[in-house]
Amino acid sequence: MKPNPPSSRGFSRRILLSTLAVMPALTGLLRANSALAQADPLPSWNDGACKSSITSFVARVTTQGGPDFVPPDQRIATFDNDGTLWVEQPMYVQLAFILDRVRALAPQNPTWKTRQPFKAVLDGDMKALAASGEKGLIELMAVTHAGMTVDEFTRTVSEWLATARHPRFRRPYTELVYQPMLEVLAYLRANGFKTFIVSGGGIEFMRPWTETIYGIPPEQVVGSSIKTRFEMRDGQPRLFRLPQINFIDDKAGKPVGINQHIGRRPVAAFGNSDGDLQMLQWTTMSGSGVRLGLIVHHTDAEREYAYDRRSHFGRLDLALDAAAVDKWALADMKKDWKRVFAFG
Amino acid sequence: MKPNPPSSRGFSRRILLSTLAVMPALTGLLRANSALAQADPLPSWNDGACKSSITSFVARVTTQGGPDFVPPDQRIATFDNDGTLWVEQPMYVQLAFILDRVRALAPQNPTWKTRQPFKAVLDGDMKALAASGEKGLIELMAVTHAGMTVDEFTRTVSEWLATARHPRFRRPYTELVYQPMLEVLAYLRANGFKTFIVSGGGIEFMRPWTETIYGIPPEQVVGSSIKTRFEMRDGQPRLFRLPQINFIDDKAGKPVGINQHIGRRPVAAFGNSDGDLQMLQWTTMSGSGVRLGLIVHHTDAEREYAYDRRSHFGRLDLALDAAAVDKWALADMKKDWKRVFAFG
Repeated sequence: MKPNPPSSRGFSRRILLSTLAVMPALTGLLRANSALAQADPLPSWNDGACKSSITSFVARVTTQGGPDFVPPDQRIATFDNDGTLWVEQPMYVQLAFILDRVRALAPQNPTWKTRQPFKAVLDGDMKALAASGEKGLIELMAVTHAGMTVDEFTRTVSEWLATARHPRFRRPYTELVYQPMLEVLAYLRANGFKTFIVSGGGIEFMRPWTETIYGIPPEQVVGSSIKTRFEMRDGQPRLFRLPQINFIDDKAGKPVGINQHIGRRPVAAFGNSDGDLQMLQWTTMSGSGVRLGLIVHHTDAEREYAYDRRSHFGRLDLALDAAAVDKWALADMKKDWKRVFAFG
Repeated sequence: MKPNPPSSRGFSRRILLSTLAVMPALTGLLRANSALAQADPLPSWNDGACKSSITSFVARVTTQGGPDFVPPDQRIATFDNDGTLWVEQPMYVQLAFILDRVRALAPQNPTWKTRQPFKAVLDGDMKALAASGEKGLIELMAVTHAGMTVDEFTRTVSEWLATARHPRFRRPYTELVYQPMLEVLAYLRANGFKTFIVSGGGIEFMRPWTETIYGIPPEQVVGSSIKTRFEMRDGQPRLFRLPQINFIDDKAGKPVGINQHIGRRPVAAFGNSDGDLQMLQWTTMSGSGVRLGLIVHHTDAEREYAYDRRSHFGRLDLALDAAAVDKWALADMKKDWKRVFAFG
């Protein structure tokens, strides 16, 4: 073959040089594509109907000019806590706190040894404790949640959480949060949502740790509460916790709490039990526009727990039936979650 | 005179050239300085102790590494509404709403013509109305604030505000907001503060307009409330307003409401009456670090109103004494405010 003429060789060289010049840009593009491919916002979710229902909802409400666009200030998402964001078996974490506090306070209260419901707690007699019913629980709440300032209670909760361990997983409760749900929280916030907790649990029991664990500040926590009284004591103002129920943020109380606290209707709500039924109805069945309701279904006895219709804590019965009718997404823990916790 | 020797001329030229080269930068600096001078964040405030107390507080808590630095998430500022952000004379705006609503509903309630406290309202007999006391007011609240859904109430408030006029200023109430306080709200937010309303007024009465008027979203409004009930009606969820007091967010109720709703202690609080005393105590007298308490003192009968210790609405008596002792800033409306409203 003839060698290329000088002009052609010059041309090739120019092509080579210009290609080289473009290379860094190309490399950049390739990197960007690969970053996009890797940037799954929900990496702990298996692909499937449930994951798609979350991502397609977010895509629809954030598409400016689209028919389902929701302005950022109206992107309110509410999350139940127990069983939706962290573990609620074998008992609510707050109940574990109550039982530990009763044990810790027992030496200063010698009569508790013979008096119900305290005796049941000290004997570890869960059957007798259950028999004491709501009245018994209110008595336990009174001695563990009231009779101190809000600052003192906050300190007690923080100290307990630092040392308490889950009986099965042998880890702090704050590690027993669901990694896939942490990803949903972060994904929604990255898309302009304001995320709230709306829990039947105590508002002051949750606030000391929700910001660190979930990125949810105290003012975005809605929960049950007891009454407090403001008073000046030795020239210092304080809020004193009283042994009187103020508000129960459960079942039909959840929409009431949402309206009282947030003053807007959520466009997305996440729950796991019949306690969340009305919150999901309030979120998805009124107002116009696209809405997301999602129920975490505990189906994984191996990695976490499997329970629904007959459970003592977090019973999912009416809301499971409603999910089918009202087209709420069901997160099947076993099938939809690649992993449950951040560890292991 | 001898002409400059060549070297000297060259030197001069160099100086001239280098000076010219610097000119754009200098011009930029001058512009920036002049922009700074113009960018007074509180242009409706006269220079003086009160204005300085606001700006120096903000400078101290936002100086990173300084002894008084407050992280952005803890920059919570609470504002009373009536008399602090908008006019409260000759009566609370919400009371004007109640009276107008009673008149509007009277045709459907013929017995009101002869029954107190309704008769007093329909006759415009303020003395008889006052005589009906708290019991009378609760009856008026019940017929004007309860017995409808939250959505219906919101609509009613919005429609009323669109047409109601202040008896003296002949303007919509939403124009009777204090321009200097709007500037404080914006200035604090520009410095990373989250601004909340904490008012004795009805939470649902305020929420329909606080975002438009003050830039404060519904979830950052704390106020008094009546109870609501969640119910499904014809397959639609709704919240129904009941004629029962839920919470009175006034006096010692304000710290309670702040704790319930925000869950953090404010670092700055703004009020104008004895109803704000405990909020200012809670904000400024506990916790560590620099705090700001400010009281709007109505001293300007010409541009607005002059009232304090003997006033019926917004009495400022105990809190005025406390201001001196506890070093709260006093905004003397006549002296400290260049203008009161945005208009005129």
